[in-house]
Amino acid sequence: MPVIVDHARRRLDVAEIAARLIVESGLDAVTFRDIAREAGYSTSVVSHYFRNKRDLLLFVYRMVTERAVEDVKAALASGADLQTCLEALLPVNEGRRANWRIWFAFWSMTSTDEELLAEQQRRGREARQLIERVLRMTSASRRKYLTDEDLEMQSRRLLATVVGLATQGVHDPEDWPAERLRAVLLREIATL
Amino acid sequence: MPVIVDHARRRLDVAEIAARLIVESGLDAVTFRDIAREAGYSTSVVSHYFRNKRDLLLFVYRMVTERAVEDVKAALASGADLQTCLEALLPVNEGRRANWRIWFAFWSMTSTDEELLAEQQRRGREARQLIERVLRMTSASRRKYLTDEDLEMQSRRLLATVVGLATQGVHDPEDWPAERLRAVLLREIATL
Repeated sequence: MPVIVDHARRRLDVAEIAARLIVESGLDAVTFRDIAREAGYSTSVVSHYFRNKRDLLLFVYRMVTERAVEDVKAALASGADLQTCLEALLPVNEGRRANWRIWFAFWSMTSTDEELLAEQQRRGREARQLIERVLRMTSASRRKYLTDEDLEMQSRRLLATVVGLATQGVHDPEDWPAERLRAVLLREIATL
Repeated sequence: MPVIVDHARRRLDVAEIAARLIVESGLDAVTFRDIAREAGYSTSVVSHYFRNKRDLLLFVYRMVTERAVEDVKAALASGADLQTCLEALLPVNEGRRANWRIWFAFWSMTSTDEELLAEQQRRGREARQLIERVLRMTSASRRKYLTDEDLEMQSRRLLATVVGLATQGVHDPEDWPAERLRAVLLREIATL
């Protein structure tokens, strides 16, 4: 029987390993050879799935971004409150800190690559809309008092807060430990 | 008469040019040769001032960070209100957008370089303290009602908001134009 290779699965496996190596060693230091060695494939297998490091970073970016969106949606679907839904985006554990590292690596490339910038803009707008949706669904009782304009403004404030908190939390977990990130977010939510 | 070279001035000139090239072309693409050509010096002059690109980035980071701090202090000294002082940190013009590009480039390197991470932590804490000072000085009438703990919490909220707004403003000026960055900050300040 012929061996059937699940290419989508393999591509994802390679991307997972790449994500870990990017977080550990930095985007510049990671080579296709490193990724192949870690994955147990030849370098040509890695090249089969990704044309170059930029393509790989774009794929990794989409992968971690989509997972983060899924985490928020899952929290929302389980009936969690606004605080819990937004905490799914904060770097309160290693996995989420790693996501932010990938996003920082991506941001450093958006100034000179229009396609990456367009991707960042699209994802940023989606994140803002997702937060607006969470806000609508978790504040049902207050919703009748909130205009659409209010909801948009509040979602912008919350997105800014989450991104700003994450930046501090990733760089300086001693001054911004998980409990503090949660406490500042809670205080922010109390003012909506 | 011997030619007296003002090395501190030259080093700063080279760093200015480097900052512009990093913003225009990305850190990876910029070489000492490019910087030397643009500055009208030989590559060896640039190497005389900076051992490598990492040293150059660290110097550029400090230069733009210190200037940003000076901008806030100048606003504060001129009697500006909280909003105006903090706007000095938002990417509402080309110069300030460029600062944020430098900071993003720096953030992408902090995961693998402990000295750069320590620098980022020190500057982040200073920024938080500066905002706390601005908050104390611009809210003199309310100050008696604010405990030190409140001031710390509010300064953390404001730092997160400014960093988050800047991130969105740099990446997506269409969805986050200068007027919107100012409006969200104003709304945030109204809730303190």
